[in-house]
Amino acid sequence: MHALIPGSFDPVTVGHLDIIRRAAALFSSVTVAVCDNVEKRFMFSAEERLRFLKQAVAPLSNVTAIIAEGWAADATRRHGADLIVKGLRGGVDFEYENQIAQANKTVCGLETLFLPSSPQHSAVCSAAVREMIRCGKDFSLYVPEGVTIF
Amino acid sequence: MHALIPGSFDPVTVGHLDIIRRAAALFSSVTVAVCDNVEKRFMFSAEERLRFLKQAVAPLSNVTAIIAEGWAADATRRHGADLIVKGLRGGVDFEYENQIAQANKTVCGLETLFLPSSPQHSAVCSAAVREMIRCGKDFSLYVPEGVTIF
Amino acid sequence: MHALIPGSFDPVTVGHLDIIRRAAALFSSVTVAVCDNVEKRFMFSAEERLRFLKQAVAPLSNVTAIIAEGWAADATRRHGADLIVKGLRGGVDFEYENQIAQANKTVCGLETLFLPSSPQHSAVCSAAVREMIRCGKDFSLYVPEGVTIF
Amino acid sequence: MHALIPGSFDPVTVGHLDIIRRAAALFSSVTVAVCDNVEKRFMFSAEERLRFLKQAVAPLSNVTAIIAEGWAADATRRHGADLIVKGLRGGVDFEYENQIAQANKTVCGLETLFLPSSPQHSAVCSAAVREMIRCGKDFSLYVPEGVTIF
Amino acid sequence: MHALIPGSFDPVTVGHLDIIRRAAALFSSVTVAVCDNVEKRFMFSAEERLRFLKQAVAPLSNVTAIIAEGWAADATRRHGADLIVKGLRGGVDFEYENQIAQANKTVCGLETLFLPSSPQHSAVCSAAVREMIRCGKDFSLYVPEGVTIF
Amino acid sequence: MHALIPGSFDPVTVGHLDIIRRAAALFSSVTVAVCDNVEKRFMFSAEERLRFLKQAVAPLSNVTAIIAEGWAADATRRHGADLIVKGLRGGVDFEYENQIAQANKTVCGLETLFLPSSPQHSAVCSAAVREMIRCGKDFSLYVPEGVTIF
Repeated sequence: MHALIPGSFDPVTVGHLDIIRRAAALFSSVTVAVCDNVEKRFMFSAEERLRFLKQAVAPLSNVTAIIAEGWAADATRRHGADLIVKGLRGGVDFEYENQIAQANKTVCGLETLFLPSSPQHSAVCSAAVREMIRCGKDFSLYVPEGVTIF
Repeated sequence: MHALIPGSFDPVTVGHLDIIRRAAALFSSVTVAVCDNVEKRFMFSAEERLRFLKQAVAPLSNVTAIIAEGWAADATRRHGADLIVKGLRGGVDFEYENQIAQANKTVCGLETLFLPSSPQHSAVCSAAVREMIRCGKDFSLYVPEGVTIF
Repeated sequence: MHALIPGSFDPVTVGHLDIIRRAAALFSSVTVAVCDNVEKRFMFSAEERLRFLKQAVAPLSNVTAIIAEGWAADATRRHGADLIVKGLRGGVDFEYENQIAQANKTVCGLETLFLPSSPQHSAVCSAAVREMIRCGKDFSLYVPEGVTIF
Repeated sequence: MHALIPGSFDPVTVGHLDIIRRAAALFSSVTVAVCDNVEKRFMFSAEERLRFLKQAVAPLSNVTAIIAEGWAADATRRHGADLIVKGLRGGVDFEYENQIAQANKTVCGLETLFLPSSPQHSAVCSAAVREMIRCGKDFSLYVPEGVTIF
Repeated sequence: MHALIPGSFDPVTVGHLDIIRRAAALFSSVTVAVCDNVEKRFMFSAEERLRFLKQAVAPLSNVTAIIAEGWAADATRRHGADLIVKGLRGGVDFEYENQIAQANKTVCGLETLFLPSSPQHSAVCSAAVREMIRCGKDFSLYVPEGVTIF
Repeated sequence: MHALIPGSFDPVTVGHLDIIRRAAALFSSVTVAVCDNVEKRFMFSAEERLRFLKQAVAPLSNVTAIIAEGWAADATRRHGADLIVKGLRGGVDFEYENQIAQANKTVCGLETLFLPSSPQHSAVCSAAVREMIRCGKDFSLYVPEGVTIF
């Protein structure tokens, strides 16, 4: 089975990489899709976010990273994915993520399966990394080894 | 009794119409108020949002749609409403909606009663419709019949 | 309109009385129904719980207290109620209360409207009163004036 | 891939069957395991719960129902399952289900993937069915067709 | 012990002042830090927010108000604080605040202790005050006495 | 300052010990109180729970473990504690814990400060340990080193 993992990855964190790694161990192939959502403002461009992601997933032979234009889950069909996988950090996340999951089912007919964050990564988020970057703090514990943001 | 249903309606969804219909069956009259909140960015202007809403509620004889300028619940007094009705989709919604409900009680002396979403509409949201529109996807299952967005 | 407020009331608290009072101000009459649920263990018998409740609502001329046997909302039909009103203390409450609300719609065709707790009562609960009673602590701030538990 | 779906199924609901059906469409085989947990009191015995479940899944050729004794996910290894699938109805569910998911990872090395409830079933629960049964109400909309509880 | 209370305070509310007062009663000294976060848009400048805050805490002899530039908790070290204190209004708040708390532990090695809002202030928020201001409504019940916003 | 940490500790977990250790680093002394609540059924007696706890905290020189009879926070006064500290694992926990915190303020005049669980322990719970014990599974990763349950 082929899984799609969509996300903003602004930038990719150790929490994202943990979900990708665990999905790559469960499914035969995984496509990670960098999404652009015009209602969000990003710190990094889609190209930069893709570059970080490619560095992070380089050791995983069955994982590919792409930029998804338009409706993210459409990338699924073009890349032959069978389902969507998303990490879930806490109960509050779910209400929001479920709205997206139901929309994907309506628009693309694709199921979303939620993989709970590994506990040690359950409070890691890209917003904290962005704030660390802005304030010149050390963010190395939050970003996968091998990713060169600067 | 006369109920006020305030909201952004950007655009109106089948979930909104379900709440309006059920309130119209419980109360003698219902005013639906399109709100402008300067902290939000909208896809559609207040006039467009009102037009969609009017199309949606046309079959409901005891429902009126208006634009609410200023503090939304003030429209209540001017239109003689006795209470506010809001849909509630999930537990997470409540904490935010309750802050608004308490502010309405402080500012206008009006109670808010929450009507739980019908389960089949509990994951429908305007944000998903906007993203479907931006990506050129079919959003007809999320928007009431008879509403002509384009 | 006639509202039904079902609950365990084991025992009635100032939070319950606040919801009953506010419903009595909105609706023409209110029936408060003491429920027995065999999956719960109670500290007080249904008769004791009814006695406390009657003392609490004595000053409210349009409120009646009863014991509801069987499916609580059936009392609605027999007493001519048009809808169910429940207090809501926080976001977590909602997920549980919504399951009951949907079951009441399926079984009795009755809508449930949720009235948010007044903030000062949002952390009051019968379980805390029961623990205060067991430990011989003063619970007078949690129980309506005029209710004589001992 | 072979998925295990553990649960109490006291009794099986249309919500459970929806999760089982969708898992059976995604994975090559599914084992549904009726669990006994000594901290819970059940209305139906494990054998009755298994019988209802077998009736419910009879039309699904790649689904098997069993009783899981001891640690539920151990059944996984004995039946060759590769992962656990659980339905998720709302954000509040997650905090509890995640504790079980992490325990299963520690004890059995198995991942849990959460499948969000179909919206129309998101407020269905076995506790409501049990209360309908106790009160002699019609519960046919909550239980899969073909299941004969009495 | 010396506690740091960081926040946006846009503007300070009676809820903020309640947390500050209770922390000032528990700890020997308290520094309240007005933060700037470039991902947020503010109604009032950092200087205005500091002025309101200073008026609010004037009667509390062991409380100092400052503007925190850069990573807010760094102000902690410069001012000799031993821990961070944050108010918590509800369960939903926690998931967001915990991400910040964990980032502060990673970046500054500082613990965060959460003080639950006093119930009567649990639905007060700066966003409601800003909306009251924009709409010309009376916000005096939400803002500490002695604070002159206009 | 002297902190009280009340709990069931049925049995003590690595998550409990993490909260106790961090409180012991912040406050001059810590009393951990094993509570009995007649609405709960326990696997281990209060004496057994105290014994496990004493083994767990043996290396912490400023921590004492006791059994709290009656209203748990009363132990506070008798032992000279200044405040209560509780761990918080997730947003859902908070609504329940806040009811207890407010009751403690009403009954004993004591504040409760919540310390968020360290992420790696955020899904650890005594209920999972009890189930591991019942099923004969290895629970050593969930229980502090040096605690001999059997």
